[in-house]
Amino acid sequence: MYPNLLMKRARLTPNRIALRFQEKEWTFAQLYNDALEFAEKLHAKNIQPGMRIAVLASSSPELVFVLHGCMQLGCELVMLNERLTEEELSYQLNDSNSDFLLVDSHEKRNLEFVKKFSFGDVQAGKRNVFEIENEWSKNRTITIMYTSGTTGNPKGVRQSLENHVMSATGSALNLGVQPNDCWLCTMPLFHISGFSILMRSVLYGMTVNLHTKFDAEQAIKEILNGFVTQMSVVAVTLERIITVLEEKNLTFPSSFQTMLVGGGPVPLNYLERAIERNIPVLQTYGMTETSSQTTTLSSEDAIRKLGSAGKPLFFAEVRIDGKDKIGEICIKGPHVTKGYIGAAESKNPLVDGWLHTGDVGYIDEEGYLYVVDRRSDLMISGGENIYPAEVEQALVKHSAVKEAGVVGRQHDKWGQVPVAFVVLKDKVSEEELKEFMKNVIAPYKQPVDYYFVDQLPRNASNKLLRRELLKYLNEN
Amino acid sequence: MYPNLLMKRARLTPNRIALRFQEKEWTFAQLYNDALEFAEKLHAKNIQPGMRIAVLASSSPELVFVLHGCMQLGCELVMLNERLTEEELSYQLNDSNSDFLLVDSHEKRNLEFVKKFSFGDVQAGKRNVFEIENEWSKNRTITIMYTSGTTGNPKGVRQSLENHVMSATGSALNLGVQPNDCWLCTMPLFHISGFSILMRSVLYGMTVNLHTKFDAEQAIKEILNGFVTQMSVVAVTLERIITVLEEKNLTFPSSFQTMLVGGGPVPLNYLERAIERNIPVLQTYGMTETSSQTTTLSSEDAIRKLGSAGKPLFFAEVRIDGKDKIGEICIKGPHVTKGYIGAAESKNPLVDGWLHTGDVGYIDEEGYLYVVDRRSDLMISGGENIYPAEVEQALVKHSAVKEAGVVGRQHDKWGQVPVAFVVLKDKVSEEELKEFMKNVIAPYKQPVDYYFVDQLPRNASNKLLRRELLKYLNEN
Repeated sequence: MYPNLLMKRARLTPNRIALRFQEKEWTFAQLYNDALEFAEKLHAKNIQPGMRIAVLASSSPELVFVLHGCMQLGCELVMLNERLTEEELSYQLNDSNSDFLLVDSHEKRNLEFVKKFSFGDVQAGKRNVFEIENEWSKNRTITIMYTSGTTGNPKGVRQSLENHVMSATGSALNLGVQPNDCWLCTMPLFHISGFSILMRSVLYGMTVNLHTKFDAEQAIKEILNGFVTQMSVVAVTLERIITVLEEKNLTFPSSFQTMLVGGGPVPLNYLERAIERNIPVLQTYGMTETSSQTTTLSSEDAIRKLGSAGKPLFFAEVRIDGKDKIGEICIKGPHVTKGYIGAAESKNPLVDGWLHTGDVGYIDEEGYLYVVDRRSDLMISGGENIYPAEVEQALVKHSAVKEAGVVGRQHDKWGQVPVAFVVLKDKVSEEELKEFMKNVIAPYKQPVDYYFVDQLPRNASNKLLRRELLKYLNEN
Repeated sequence: MYPNLLMKRARLTPNRIALRFQEKEWTFAQLYNDALEFAEKLHAKNIQPGMRIAVLASSSPELVFVLHGCMQLGCELVMLNERLTEEELSYQLNDSNSDFLLVDSHEKRNLEFVKKFSFGDVQAGKRNVFEIENEWSKNRTITIMYTSGTTGNPKGVRQSLENHVMSATGSALNLGVQPNDCWLCTMPLFHISGFSILMRSVLYGMTVNLHTKFDAEQAIKEILNGFVTQMSVVAVTLERIITVLEEKNLTFPSSFQTMLVGGGPVPLNYLERAIERNIPVLQTYGMTETSSQTTTLSSEDAIRKLGSAGKPLFFAEVRIDGKDKIGEICIKGPHVTKGYIGAAESKNPLVDGWLHTGDVGYIDEEGYLYVVDRRSDLMISGGENIYPAEVEQALVKHSAVKEAGVVGRQHDKWGQVPVAFVVLKDKVSEEELKEFMKNVIAPYKQPVDYYFVDQLPRNASNKLLRRELLKYLNEN
């Protein structure tokens, strides 16, 4: 058992600032009160402990109250990605067997779901008290986040309380913790990169400085004013921050301690330019299945080991599978998911206790991990994961498309962007396909270019050879 | 499972300073190597994983290697208190069923024990490799420390790996952790106050600055040079530090962050004088059964809540039992012992999961614990626990003594000192009794005064009423 995290934190340091958003601040005592109020209002809508609640919203203080409110009520959170299409969202709602859907007032899509409330609907209702739990089971599901794979259908990854607590603890033992810590959160809360900041906040008694979306100028301003001590970024957002600093000839103050860079490969050039601007960049390697960081550089190695994703955090283990030095990255530890929910529930993500990531890397003689390539069936565009199989499945839904193959093309700003190879059975234009795809998958997943081909490269067992498509792309 | 703590730490930060003693320093890599060497030499002496090893030694770097060596070999450590008599030590050696006894070269007593080695014996031997465990079971016994109770016979308290890890983690979430932390250890390593510093060190990657014994001048010198960031003291050692600072008109530098004051009540006057000298005192309430701290003040409350022992650390719970506001302090959490070994093995220290401490206190409206009185059958003298029943048992071993009652008299320097009430069956002088006691119990436990009385106050069921003796003491 662990203590009820927010209740405990509110008792320990009620007057510390928990949340800062624009000009407003909430202490931990206020956050706990607001979360409880929301929980009681949810309860009045007949939402019961143990239910699964899907949440679709932009980052805002209200979303933070909602997430903590659901946790206080003992519900499991299905974290929906705002950028998905209705079709994609419907799949996740059904697959997760969600009992209710909560949406914020920005949500304009008319998602069909029987038990749906806006945050405003809930706030306007009455309160209904329930018995607050002082202790929470370690194995309790806190969050469910969907991530795709080779099959194309996204799978709901279960993140337990122990996963989140051990992730935050391991991070603390590497990055350190201080009473005046303040983490700038511009990452979406529906991603583990954002949600894990909320969890660290209650465990450490740390302020979360929340932005609805990433804005380089705004982020820099907050860091320069000296309040912010940590921030999480992906390659593309790091680059924008560096560029603004370079343009204005500014450097970061020493009050800023950690720029955690994750979510895919980071060009060495960015890291070097960051150091020029006194940005203490620490590369990390994490994923939904590991509730955030598995390996992270420590500050003393930041420069000497530039380009490495660091060593496994205290409670984590990493090994490389395969015959050569470079092989598949496998992960073990109390931060690794216990499994999936929904259609993928019977699939065990672990083999003998190890998560086989499909990512490729090596460990140097000093124990530092280098991620050479993310899994061949994954591309990362601006920090968002895109699974080719998912885009291919979307394409073949069009009646004119016979087969499709999708790969990532290198892109200076986004890292990678998807392009499609299509075999047609009927005539259709590129424009028509693009229009069709808009309703099927999220904008960031839509192919930027289409190649119409007679056939796709396949191996003897008819498996699509995406590497051949990549070769073709690089040669043309 | 947790990782093998020292192995993991040596892999994470091999070049950080783990231990500093006088002018010498050891990195974590060196500490791990030295511990492994000692473990292999122990193994060559036929010491096997799972065995119980009693250790009797003063604080020294060698003792640190020995303790870590035993842990690497998978042995359980019985931590013997140097200040005990041969008779007391023999009891603990037998009760714990220790397989081997290790003593340092300072140990002049000729303790009879079949399987006894000096550290030098082991160091001089050859090495015998064994299979090092990468992971350690949470429930593994790391240490056994003896503490007495109402029965008079000391009981061996089992401190598991989980106890130590969760204690260190809870402390980190309260005090913070930084890569340049350095804890000055002048407490004996056979006490939980000292041993817990070693455990924090490997978890945090923190330097331990080790002193063989407390010396106020030396401690102040180390703190003024700016390396030391934390220190643990008891009331009497805190007072000596304050006095020296006052005499020299010195204050502590801001690099020094935490003076953890535990081991019994602390006069408010000490705390106030400490603040005058810029000593960031944080009172704590801990004990052997809770593997160090249960409650500790946080830095932001240090002055406002002077006199309180703070709030329960993140993973700990405290409640007050009884009908009134003031009652028995009860403790729950993953840092609480799972039980005793030896003669007391069948006694469960927990009732419904709660440790009933016998100590008396209250929790104020803001959740801060105030320890009003340690258990009535316990006195604390210079940070050492003395159980009256144990001293009484020692007294009645003298052929002239019929009955004895022991209570603590208030003492300006030591907090309390024991005094004895004795009913004689034959004639004996106070001097003879004092001489006799020297061989039976440790010096700090020996009564400073003797009252010869005709009978002892007892209740209907013949239970000794120590409170009546206390009253008599206070009136005379």
